[in-house]
Amino acid sequence: MKLLIIGGVAGGASAAARARRVDESAEIILFERGEHISFANCGLPYHVSETIPDRDSLLIVTPARFKARTGIEVRVRHEVTAIDPDAKTVTVIDLAKGSRYTESFDKLILSPGASPIRPGIPGVDDPAVTMLWTLADMDRIKARVDAGIRRAVVVGGGFIGLELAECLRDRNVDVTLVEMAPQLLPPLDPEMTAPLADEMERNGVRLLLGAALSAIRRTTLPDDSGTAELTVELADGRSFPADLVVLAIGVRPNSELAVSAGLATGARGGILVDERMQTSRPDIYAVGDAIQVSDSLGRPAQIPLAGPANRQGRIAAGNALGGTETYRATFGTSVLKLFGLTAAATGASEKALKLAGAPYEKIYLNPFSHATYYPGAQMMHLKLLFSREGRILGAQIVGRDGVDKRIDVLATAMQAGLTVYDLQALELAYAPPYGSAKDPVNFAGFVAVNVLSGKSNPAHADALPPDALLLDVREPVEFELEAIPGARPMPLGTIRDRLAELPRDREIVAYCAVGIRGYLAERILKAHGFEARNLSGGITTWKLFRAGGG
Amino acid sequence: MKLLIIGGVAGGASAAARARRVDESAEIILFERGEHISFANCGLPYHVSETIPDRDSLLIVTPARFKARTGIEVRVRHEVTAIDPDAKTVTVIDLAKGSRYTESFDKLILSPGASPIRPGIPGVDDPAVTMLWTLADMDRIKARVDAGIRRAVVVGGGFIGLELAECLRDRNVDVTLVEMAPQLLPPLDPEMTAPLADEMERNGVRLLLGAALSAIRRTTLPDDSGTAELTVELADGRSFPADLVVLAIGVRPNSELAVSAGLATGARGGILVDERMQTSRPDIYAVGDAIQVSDSLGRPAQIPLAGPANRQGRIAAGNALGGTETYRATFGTSVLKLFGLTAAATGASEKALKLAGAPYEKIYLNPFSHATYYPGAQMMHLKLLFSREGRILGAQIVGRDGVDKRIDVLATAMQAGLTVYDLQALELAYAPPYGSAKDPVNFAGFVAVNVLSGKSNPAHADALPPDALLLDVREPVEFELEAIPGARPMPLGTIRDRLAELPRDREIVAYCAVGIRGYLAERILKAHGFEARNLSGGITTWKLFRAGGG
Repeated sequence: MKLLIIGGVAGGASAAARARRVDESAEIILFERGEHISFANCGLPYHVSETIPDRDSLLIVTPARFKARTGIEVRVRHEVTAIDPDAKTVTVIDLAKGSRYTESFDKLILSPGASPIRPGIPGVDDPAVTMLWTLADMDRIKARVDAGIRRAVVVGGGFIGLELAECLRDRNVDVTLVEMAPQLLPPLDPEMTAPLADEMERNGVRLLLGAALSAIRRTTLPDDSGTAELTVELADGRSFPADLVVLAIGVRPNSELAVSAGLATGARGGILVDERMQTSRPDIYAVGDAIQVSDSLGRPAQIPLAGPANRQGRIAAGNALGGTETYRATFGTSVLKLFGLTAAATGASEKALKLAGAPYEKIYLNPFSHATYYPGAQMMHLKLLFSREGRILGAQIVGRDGVDKRIDVLATAMQAGLTVYDLQALELAYAPPYGSAKDPVNFAGFVAVNVLSGKSNPAHADALPPDALLLDVREPVEFELEAIPGARPMPLGTIRDRLAELPRDREIVAYCAVGIRGYLAERILKAHGFEARNLSGGITTWKLFRAGGG
Repeated sequence: MKLLIIGGVAGGASAAARARRVDESAEIILFERGEHISFANCGLPYHVSETIPDRDSLLIVTPARFKARTGIEVRVRHEVTAIDPDAKTVTVIDLAKGSRYTESFDKLILSPGASPIRPGIPGVDDPAVTMLWTLADMDRIKARVDAGIRRAVVVGGGFIGLELAECLRDRNVDVTLVEMAPQLLPPLDPEMTAPLADEMERNGVRLLLGAALSAIRRTTLPDDSGTAELTVELADGRSFPADLVVLAIGVRPNSELAVSAGLATGARGGILVDERMQTSRPDIYAVGDAIQVSDSLGRPAQIPLAGPANRQGRIAAGNALGGTETYRATFGTSVLKLFGLTAAATGASEKALKLAGAPYEKIYLNPFSHATYYPGAQMMHLKLLFSREGRILGAQIVGRDGVDKRIDVLATAMQAGLTVYDLQALELAYAPPYGSAKDPVNFAGFVAVNVLSGKSNPAHADALPPDALLLDVREPVEFELEAIPGARPMPLGTIRDRLAELPRDREIVAYCAVGIRGYLAERILKAHGFEARNLSGGITTWKLFRAGGG
């Protein structure tokens, strides 16, 4: 058995290591175009900030050590330029020597990854314009920061752009973040990204949403006057000085090699594989950012994430060596640290559900990370999407402490096929420093089931019934501080005595701070024959919509 | 509909609130013997330490506020002394007035809770001996600490005893903790509690395991010389001075009222209920610490936890008002903060599986809380118990950061019926500050599946094959620092070249730091025809057994 693996980072390195564990005697050769295998690409921004001070710690395993442990032949700076699926050979260029040779295979695993998209605008090739994808990119950015640049423009509000913006601020660089969409972090729905925009601005990032880059121009530097080297121009005519521009607007799959070899690819360029990670040719497998996957709705998607790439690598290796392992969907479970915030998502967003034409229900909650009587409890914003049958379709959480835990529990529940009914009954670990006797995940179940059972008819801040009476059921001191314009105050504890003051010919939308008292008010009003709804998530969620462009 | 609820803390308060949400018009009366309803009993130790400075924050809702919001009649300091299930009445004593009356019901929910066990030894009734179960208990302890006592003896190494020991140390009290069992925290297996004992001693708690209390004697105080008021005597003859003794040796269900009314109870005194929380009498439900539940193995158990009590209360209320909701098992998912440590468990322990005669496999892992190249990654000790079919039977984790997240994910997976095969594929949220591309939960799946598939035959530190060769496959520098006595060093990277040095007539147990390199060594050795095993969890887990009384 001779197994070749093309690409030595996440998916390829995982495939190689697994292949050796499965088969001690197979001949395995790993080709990597770059200098490093298995480097920590998710850690790149944090070396720029010196959060990770030691660059070497990003090199998880050196080719020499990997070879010593696995007996796998690792060929770095060797680029595979062609595959002959019929002859079962690949053509390789030794980049150091400039020589070319052919290598045969019994099985081949492709893990060529993705490449950052470089927009076709003037100035994009200026040496002070870079991506953040490789160690060399990181070194280039860090060298500029170490040299004392003052102003950076980061283009793109996805994971890498946001992480880098934070890391540059940590180094006291003035940062402008430019994002073409009207929101940050595309996996989330717009209203859920409002706290991210706040957090950016609170930490001194100038944020330009809905702003399209049109050109990057080199400034003529008259002298050492401190004038920036570059001017970043936007389509709306605005321009900003910059000493460094980093483009992080997305990636495209590196599928050229596969296409040349006649392997089938999808509409977005990803290599097509079956559930065994096999391409359209039987002895060739593909994994990682370069392949097309099914998302949680069963739709074709490109989802470049490290966790799925690693698992796909394991599975491809197992199958290449005779196993029968399968990969299902990529749920897109992801998490971001942004200064003091954590934002996380799993499954489908509301945007994605609308796009797919899939029916859904949604609820918002604003629970605390742990029992509020124990110090340090922090509010999180939680959005749950589910079907009328109770199937969990997606979840998004933004907050501080405890966000990563709840998204992982919800991701596990969703992948296990649990329903919102099951969420009510989940027995999670409770002690005051860690959670609540009714965990936010249980609460999400309670609220969702109330919606499905008809006990609650949620109103949403992005679609308030126009003629409804907005009833603020909080205490007077809360109402005086801040209320939704046009709302009438009637504290929850007084409603039963003041029913006569309420209209019977008009819908009433009750609201409170986070949605709990509003629901109790809804229940009381309905029991007395009123047409009532509860504003999901209360004024807290309403404010996300106001702030976030919902 | 007239619903009476007896007991106003966790289960009773949850039942009352839910009942009102379900039925706005029902007449609901909540009886509570004490002064408070719905107080935060899990927070009591933390007010002693002043971590929770404001005592009032433990009173989650006052009877007056609860009544205003729910319209439920709350009768505190009213004790129900008898139930007549045939006449459907209860006898109540108004403790303030000393008067007695009868109240009729259509449906009755019992949530009488549990009471701390008071051992039958001399001196247990001394006023300086207390429990920690009620707000009054807490006030008594805190008053003594505020008055400047120097020495406390805490009896019992369960959740409350451990939390209180920490909280007393936070107030600079000398603490001796006495536990009759040879280990702390009974839901965990002995070896997993070793880090807890270390943490206690590191924080200045004198720990006496396997020590039985025999008497508490009042010391004759000759003068103001600082002599302690009490002497705590152990069965082995040792004695310790104490200004305060707190007994936290466990609780027993408050089922006397139920027994008097002829309701069926279990062998350990818990009220018997069906899956709808109904007792042996159709219109009477029971919830919380007073009832017998099924544990994760389907065996009868008393499991006093706040989360299950709350859920049972919700379900009983729903069913009392005509619903059909069911409660399954109590998995015993629990978590403890102990100084800087977190210890958590879900499902069955190895002890419990042995006792039940249930076959099981076990593995140990020592993964990090997040990517090790990102600062702050902390090792956790993880034990997973599973069946030959891959069913998850239980999990225990002890560590610092990230323990509560992983136990909740494993608890969710177990309750969803996921297998260890499924754990491999769980797509959890990864970014360097939060986890790893292969999360500890995924890793637990990988290792368990390797065991089930026969790829790995784990050896365990509590049952090392007596004649095996122990092969230390770490680097020389690690071996020199500390090794298992009798082990032979052979770094992983050298094994393939040194096979001739190894015996073919004797089992080889490879080990490394945490079990990963040991597994690679096992795979290499097996591929070359050796009889090899991997020491599960490596020397790290071996040390837990040495330290912990395994």
